[in-house]
Amino acid sequence: MKKLNELTYGIVGLGLMGGSIAKAIREYVLSKHGSTGRILSSSRNLSSLKMAKDQNVIDEFYPLDKADDMLSQCDFVFVCLYPHMTVEFIVDHKNAFKSGSILTDINGVKAEIFDRMDEIRREDIDFIPGHPMAGREKEGYSFSSGDIFKNHNYILMPLKESRKENIDLFKSLVTEIGFSRIVETDGRVHDHKIAFTSQLCHVLASCLVDSAENSDVTQFGGGSFEDLTRIAMINAPLWTELFLANKNELLSHIESFENSLTTLKNFIKNDDAKGCESYLENVRTKRLEMSRIDVKNEN
Amino acid sequence: MKKLNELTYGIVGLGLMGGSIAKAIREYVLSKHGSTGRILSSSRNLSSLKMAKDQNVIDEFYPLDKADDMLSQCDFVFVCLYPHMTVEFIVDHKNAFKSGSILTDINGVKAEIFDRMDEIRREDIDFIPGHPMAGREKEGYSFSSGDIFKNHNYILMPLKESRKENIDLFKSLVTEIGFSRIVETDGRVHDHKIAFTSQLCHVLASCLVDSAENSDVTQFGGGSFEDLTRIAMINAPLWTELFLANKNELLSHIESFENSLTTLKNFIKNDDAKGCESYLENVRTKRLEMSRIDVKNEN
Repeated sequence: MKKLNELTYGIVGLGLMGGSIAKAIREYVLSKHGSTGRILSSSRNLSSLKMAKDQNVIDEFYPLDKADDMLSQCDFVFVCLYPHMTVEFIVDHKNAFKSGSILTDINGVKAEIFDRMDEIRREDIDFIPGHPMAGREKEGYSFSSGDIFKNHNYILMPLKESRKENIDLFKSLVTEIGFSRIVETDGRVHDHKIAFTSQLCHVLASCLVDSAENSDVTQFGGGSFEDLTRIAMINAPLWTELFLANKNELLSHIESFENSLTTLKNFIKNDDAKGCESYLENVRTKRLEMSRIDVKNEN
Repeated sequence: MKKLNELTYGIVGLGLMGGSIAKAIREYVLSKHGSTGRILSSSRNLSSLKMAKDQNVIDEFYPLDKADDMLSQCDFVFVCLYPHMTVEFIVDHKNAFKSGSILTDINGVKAEIFDRMDEIRREDIDFIPGHPMAGREKEGYSFSSGDIFKNHNYILMPLKESRKENIDLFKSLVTEIGFSRIVETDGRVHDHKIAFTSQLCHVLASCLVDSAENSDVTQFGGGSFEDLTRIAMINAPLWTELFLANKNELLSHIESFENSLTTLKNFIKNDDAKGCESYLENVRTKRLEMSRIDVKNEN
């Protein structure tokens, strides 16, 4: 099996996520004595590339129009672009990838990727779609950090033709850089689940902020409002893309949520203390069970 | 002015909040050399009282039917009972309080307290309603901690007849035990604001958990779902009381939220990327402004 600290990594798009992946690989995989691995990056943002080179996070950089020169050297490529650019980039540079290399993306919605798999696939490249479930409320390379992945989930969606040794290599990399749980699934299940745990949460947090009378409400906050709305410091163009790309799944979860809200609202409206308390007891039990599943998986 | 470390404190109800207040006073106010202050407590839970005495958190305890013997000694009384018991307790023990003492409660909704002020008030007792905006997802004395108040808000609702020196003493106590911001307002504003920052958040977190298909969703979580639903490990009887006690304010906030959700949902449904992005940009700006208000107040 290939050794992680001897590979050449290529990071396409050096923003918050690309930068964080590069930093984590540098820190946790390539900083070992005797390592011959390298990190290359190609991005439209030249100043981020230069900063990353100065910080010794990457070894070499390539402007986006020279990406082919990088891809031909890389054993493991992370495409960390905005969702709408991901498939375009892979298809446009299809012939540049190094034969036998592993390719992955970080898109939060996989529908387009799986729909256009025929255009993307090259037989001698192992494309393994992935989704690192981590992030920050800030954009850009300057906010990236190699430590944002600790105790987070990585979702892998190997194709049926993906080679086991490559999947294993991917998993060991993900574990090395901090992720504590790897979930394997397919694109359809991913988009359905993510619409709930990620997109619906961003919708609700945003609507909660939108419905605030004014900005001084935090004077009356006890932490709940702040916790619920931290993700509302949102990257508007990115999340607009994600919401629309996963529209049907998201709308169906929004409607389930609206039904749950109507039920609880009616208990309150009708002064139905018994109904309200039993609803909340069920919620408590369910949420505690979720924590137990988490703890179980961490052990 | 009275000295905080020379007062006799009375804690009525030694659960999560009463216990935390007692521990914080012990640790941050009475642990000084030369302190002559004491902490007494009365609660229906004898085993909590005994545990607190063993831990040297309280100096003496009184079963609830002996509360009068405690109240007559106390300079500063915190009533930390469930909302529906608070007014009853104060009215039932009205004659036992020490003349000149300060009395406060910690109720999350103030309507009943202000509605029944004539029954509660005694001219020689300074009753200053308050609301420590802090808590935990666990109930009972055994989960209490003197450190849960750090960087939290305390809301004070002095009456027009409250004495300035007592309000100042209260503020200095609250600051000593860790709170970073004290907001003065009245009961009506409190209930309106709290319905948004606290009760609506608990409603939404609960409905989000209720609408989850099953408990394994956290395998697909990236932290957002967990942050949004931590408060859904809810104390069902307590929050049922709070929701119903503040029903009209809460329902009005729920309806505003539903309107915000409908707006965003329609942008998504109609593939209106421009509308969606502009909605999210506004949300981001508003939420960042809220953080700035917070930071400003902390400095």
